[in-house]
Amino acid sequence: MDHVTFVPTVDQLAYTFGGAAPVMRIKPGTALTLWTEDAYGGRITSAADVATTALDTEDLNPQTGPFWIEGAQPGDTLAVHLVDLTPARTWGASTLIPFFGGLTSVPASPTLQDPLPERTYVYDYDAGTETLGFSALASDFQLRLPSNPMLGTVGVAPARREVRTSLVPDYFGGNMDSPEMAAGATCYLRVNVDGALFSLGDGHYRQGEGESCGTAVEGAMHVTAIVDLVKGGGPAWPRIENDTHLMCIGSGRPLEEAWRAGQVEMIGWLGELYGLDRLDAYQLLTQISEVPIANVVDTNYSAVTKVDKRLLPNASAFGGIHDEMRRAARSLGSISY
Amino acid sequence: MDHVTFVPTVDQLAYTFGGAAPVMRIKPGTALTLWTEDAYGGRITSAADVATTALDTEDLNPQTGPFWIEGAQPGDTLAVHLVDLTPARTWGASTLIPFFGGLTSVPASPTLQDPLPERTYVYDYDAGTETLGFSALASDFQLRLPSNPMLGTVGVAPARREVRTSLVPDYFGGNMDSPEMAAGATCYLRVNVDGALFSLGDGHYRQGEGESCGTAVEGAMHVTAIVDLVKGGGPAWPRIENDTHLMCIGSGRPLEEAWRAGQVEMIGWLGELYGLDRLDAYQLLTQISEVPIANVVDTNYSAVTKVDKRLLPNASAFGGIHDEMRRAARSLGSISY
Amino acid sequence: MDHVTFVPTVDQLAYTFGGAAPVMRIKPGTALTLWTEDAYGGRITSAADVATTALDTEDLNPQTGPFWIEGAQPGDTLAVHLVDLTPARTWGASTLIPFFGGLTSVPASPTLQDPLPERTYVYDYDAGTETLGFSALASDFQLRLPSNPMLGTVGVAPARREVRTSLVPDYFGGNMDSPEMAAGATCYLRVNVDGALFSLGDGHYRQGEGESCGTAVEGAMHVTAIVDLVKGGGPAWPRIENDTHLMCIGSGRPLEEAWRAGQVEMIGWLGELYGLDRLDAYQLLTQISEVPIANVVDTNYSAVTKVDKRLLPNASAFGGIHDEMRRAARSLGSISY
Amino acid sequence: MDHVTFVPTVDQLAYTFGGAAPVMRIKPGTALTLWTEDAYGGRITSAADVATTALDTEDLNPQTGPFWIEGAQPGDTLAVHLVDLTPARTWGASTLIPFFGGLTSVPASPTLQDPLPERTYVYDYDAGTETLGFSALASDFQLRLPSNPMLGTVGVAPARREVRTSLVPDYFGGNMDSPEMAAGATCYLRVNVDGALFSLGDGHYRQGEGESCGTAVEGAMHVTAIVDLVKGGGPAWPRIENDTHLMCIGSGRPLEEAWRAGQVEMIGWLGELYGLDRLDAYQLLTQISEVPIANVVDTNYSAVTKVDKRLLPNASAFGGIHDEMRRAARSLGSISY
Repeated sequence: MDHVTFVPTVDQLAYTFGGAAPVMRIKPGTALTLWTEDAYGGRITSAADVATTALDTEDLNPQTGPFWIEGAQPGDTLAVHLVDLTPARTWGASTLIPFFGGLTSVPASPTLQDPLPERTYVYDYDAGTETLGFSALASDFQLRLPSNPMLGTVGVAPARREVRTSLVPDYFGGNMDSPEMAAGATCYLRVNVDGALFSLGDGHYRQGEGESCGTAVEGAMHVTAIVDLVKGGGPAWPRIENDTHLMCIGSGRPLEEAWRAGQVEMIGWLGELYGLDRLDAYQLLTQISEVPIANVVDTNYSAVTKVDKRLLPNASAFGGIHDEMRRAARSLGSISY
Repeated sequence: MDHVTFVPTVDQLAYTFGGAAPVMRIKPGTALTLWTEDAYGGRITSAADVATTALDTEDLNPQTGPFWIEGAQPGDTLAVHLVDLTPARTWGASTLIPFFGGLTSVPASPTLQDPLPERTYVYDYDAGTETLGFSALASDFQLRLPSNPMLGTVGVAPARREVRTSLVPDYFGGNMDSPEMAAGATCYLRVNVDGALFSLGDGHYRQGEGESCGTAVEGAMHVTAIVDLVKGGGPAWPRIENDTHLMCIGSGRPLEEAWRAGQVEMIGWLGELYGLDRLDAYQLLTQISEVPIANVVDTNYSAVTKVDKRLLPNASAFGGIHDEMRRAARSLGSISY
Repeated sequence: MDHVTFVPTVDQLAYTFGGAAPVMRIKPGTALTLWTEDAYGGRITSAADVATTALDTEDLNPQTGPFWIEGAQPGDTLAVHLVDLTPARTWGASTLIPFFGGLTSVPASPTLQDPLPERTYVYDYDAGTETLGFSALASDFQLRLPSNPMLGTVGVAPARREVRTSLVPDYFGGNMDSPEMAAGATCYLRVNVDGALFSLGDGHYRQGEGESCGTAVEGAMHVTAIVDLVKGGGPAWPRIENDTHLMCIGSGRPLEEAWRAGQVEMIGWLGELYGLDRLDAYQLLTQISEVPIANVVDTNYSAVTKVDKRLLPNASAFGGIHDEMRRAARSLGSISY
Repeated sequence: MDHVTFVPTVDQLAYTFGGAAPVMRIKPGTALTLWTEDAYGGRITSAADVATTALDTEDLNPQTGPFWIEGAQPGDTLAVHLVDLTPARTWGASTLIPFFGGLTSVPASPTLQDPLPERTYVYDYDAGTETLGFSALASDFQLRLPSNPMLGTVGVAPARREVRTSLVPDYFGGNMDSPEMAAGATCYLRVNVDGALFSLGDGHYRQGEGESCGTAVEGAMHVTAIVDLVKGGGPAWPRIENDTHLMCIGSGRPLEEAWRAGQVEMIGWLGELYGLDRLDAYQLLTQISEVPIANVVDTNYSAVTKVDKRLLPNASAFGGIHDEMRRAARSLGSISY
């Protein structure tokens, strides 16, 4: 298995899905060891760095990539298996950004109210205990929380000649902000353009479901992933498989539309795996669906539809590629950065 | 502790929150052993009973109650601890009802498309293994699923002189359809009228998050609950506490509004418990919130905001009444019906 | 034609649709001369009366009625023709109420932002010129605007045993807040309970489409209306006919669902009038629909679908009752209060 | 005044805002006489051409342009005055496209229902009477309707490096589908990239508000427009001015968010014109706002907020450029193609 390492320079960062020149061409089945900058572009380094003075709003959520996958053609399925996510700094930061987040008015749905005050919370990260330190800023309260590294953003170039900001998730993946995008997960994305033009970024050391205030504990991340290709079979919406669950992620607005997209995608998947007619799959899903919300803060919201494989008969999705990639991941041995 | 048993006759069933005469007056701290009819009013008994011919659409989702709680006044907090939920039949049923459910157009948001075909799925319930049998109707597929008894509907009379159908959840509880409403949970509801006028029903032997097709595995249920009263402190939206989690349930439409209501309720609760200022609580919730969707099928949708107590310092909600009720529940000994 | 006058005492005001005892029984074809209190219950009388100190939030939007219409049965069509609306005071008032309105967060969709400041604007009403005087409160700006008297709220008792606040519009009419509900309009409502239990109120001396801040120029109103009954044919959603237009009003949330309800209702109506199949009516409506928004501020939003009768062949809706009522209205001669 | 004519070849058509090379560089103050292909790319020519067989879904809604406006820089205001719109064919067509439109489920919010049947309605256009002939396809019904030529799509390149399909409206204009975009209207758009990269297309011979089924009477159009530039002052959302009204168009989903964006934009505009503080402008808008819906069918919905200039004191928007362009339009004399 090819194993290549890529650490982007600042100039190599991408801010869109589509539109950026590939940083590298790789063969299907390649392992990648990458570094991703945080969603702030590294501009927040202390509690004194608040959004309106520190951030460059034109250059948010930088991505590492895109990678041109050899042989990838529209309609194919890109499989990205996350082998390891390791925080690359000893701290992460979450910010309250004016008119951004789930519990404030936003430019897409403005009110006449004043913005919330801006604040930056810096969490120290302790690699030994794998915990994060939360300190309240206007109350006397401290807490250590287990870290839960994940990637907010994984995606490919969109169709119809579009170039889309890395801030807004959609059918091509992107900024879905789901805690399910963690080590051990395989993400399946439909290829929309030749070469797929895959990239990833937006490391979160921890995030709750919904990403309420709009920013997780954001931090630079070491990422090891294996990228492979299944010819054909590209799903309408991103799918994720891990050892215990099958998942589909819909994105849109209002939130119920994101949910509907993920549900119908899962009904299709259950049909593929078990030969279930659509109404039978609808019925079964009604009783077994788990729906952890991903984000309610980006311009499109994201909702996960999740089913526990352990409730279902054995079946091989996409030719059993998840299990293959798990084995390949183990063959990489222990990862260090 | 008083312990009273009540099995309603058909004529005693209630179909609204508010507007129905109390079936009984009870003192705070009373244990109730109840029976609830299924959401179909018992009119579905086989796969041949489909919605349009079997159901009485004026009399859906019958409730057991209401109970007048002595001393309950507007602004108080009613605490309902579910001690035990046991399926009262050897089968439950889930139906595809024309123009009802999450993946069809509905009267509140009509399209010109034809309805989906109607179908009734009967699940046998095996009390020994606590499993349910699913048989596909148009595919060759059978599966046994663990049962997970819960109540779709728990609520009190609304404010502002209203009488509301038992089908639509809102700030007064009602048809929230959350799998979290299971044995071991304590539900806190704001009292809106003298006596609270509490009722419950809509037993589900199992339900996925979202209740996709609109009906869970619906079945008559034996219910044992303890009902108590906390003076004052009534929450704006229903809250649930169990041994591991604190939860708030918002209901509304679109789904993000239900989510917002539950999130702001939880921020208030975290403030009450830990003295956190609102923005600090917002920040903390961002990193620890779990958001399992409850229903996306009723006229109001419901979303749960959930936090794991084990991540947080010890704190006593509502004076520690959940722990008290857990002890009281154990004092009831083994429940049989 | 019977012509009765009714001016409610404060104790006779109703705050719900359904649930209130009828103030009077009338025969179909009766003319009513009524007086309606303003939506504030008369508690705002100067710019110093702001919402949080002056209003009784349990008793908002009082209605005159309900009237029991003899012979009205579920499924029938109540026809309410507004003959005349005349402001009953020399001033009206519009208020900015904390956490209420279209450009602020609201309890149903809360944010953590502070409320907007509250303010009360008093408009003088000049009956001679039929104009209203607007004076800005924080800017140097005055303007006279033509008055446009209308009723925010017209409705009947709901179905399914419900009692619903007069604040929230739905299929039974209620607080739709459409400027189309003006003199010359005939409103058609489906009867849901015996006697229909019709009431009206919420006079607006003028209102823009959407009722942006949540309150129009609210004022007590003299109302003359003729109430008649068509057996059967009750529409799913309120319909309005005037000399130039046919209209359907859907209410719900999000706003597109209100729009869909009104559109499908109009497609049905065009089918009834012209024998159009549903897709042909859909096509025609696509090219001729007018969609003035009614309200985006109540718990349900309302959208009007409107077609210009002058674009269409002659047709008689509900047996031509609008023209009959117009003639009957003229027979009342000049109205004075 | 420069006056240039441009008729694109098929290869010169653009399908995105941003991303396409400019077809021409023009100076501010240039008159353009253009031809636009219909939204089907000219592929529908008879009732037998239905969507699934005739359309190329990758190449919908072709635009004429983009034009590079000399001197245009981010933050400037592009002013596009529509002098004349004349149907370029003797017929237009409206199609029912599977899973597209306002009264069907759509891919962004899927259900499990079957699609509506597809149909194509061809309207003959009579230039003498300026009328369109509607013939029902499954009913016996014909009607002539006045034509009302308008452009569905007018826009500039978006910000943040994006390239966006011509199908989805947003802050940069695009496929807003408002009947207000007719001859006599001046559209103001914020410039986001050097040169503005302005284009237009999607001629409608007539469209109702909402564009219910998703397609107006679509047809090739002769367009004469004057394009000018105001330095600075770029609005957040598209604005339109004609001789009688000021308008702002918000786009988004759900529909109330589009409405909010347009309302807040108008409040800002009223503040600019009259020195009104924001709450005073909110109050005034509440009483004078007109809200004709534009589209409820594209991936973003569009809502117009409209105020009648005749209710307000005289004021000059953007330095009075609308009146200047009206005069310049008259100087062009009678337009023929």
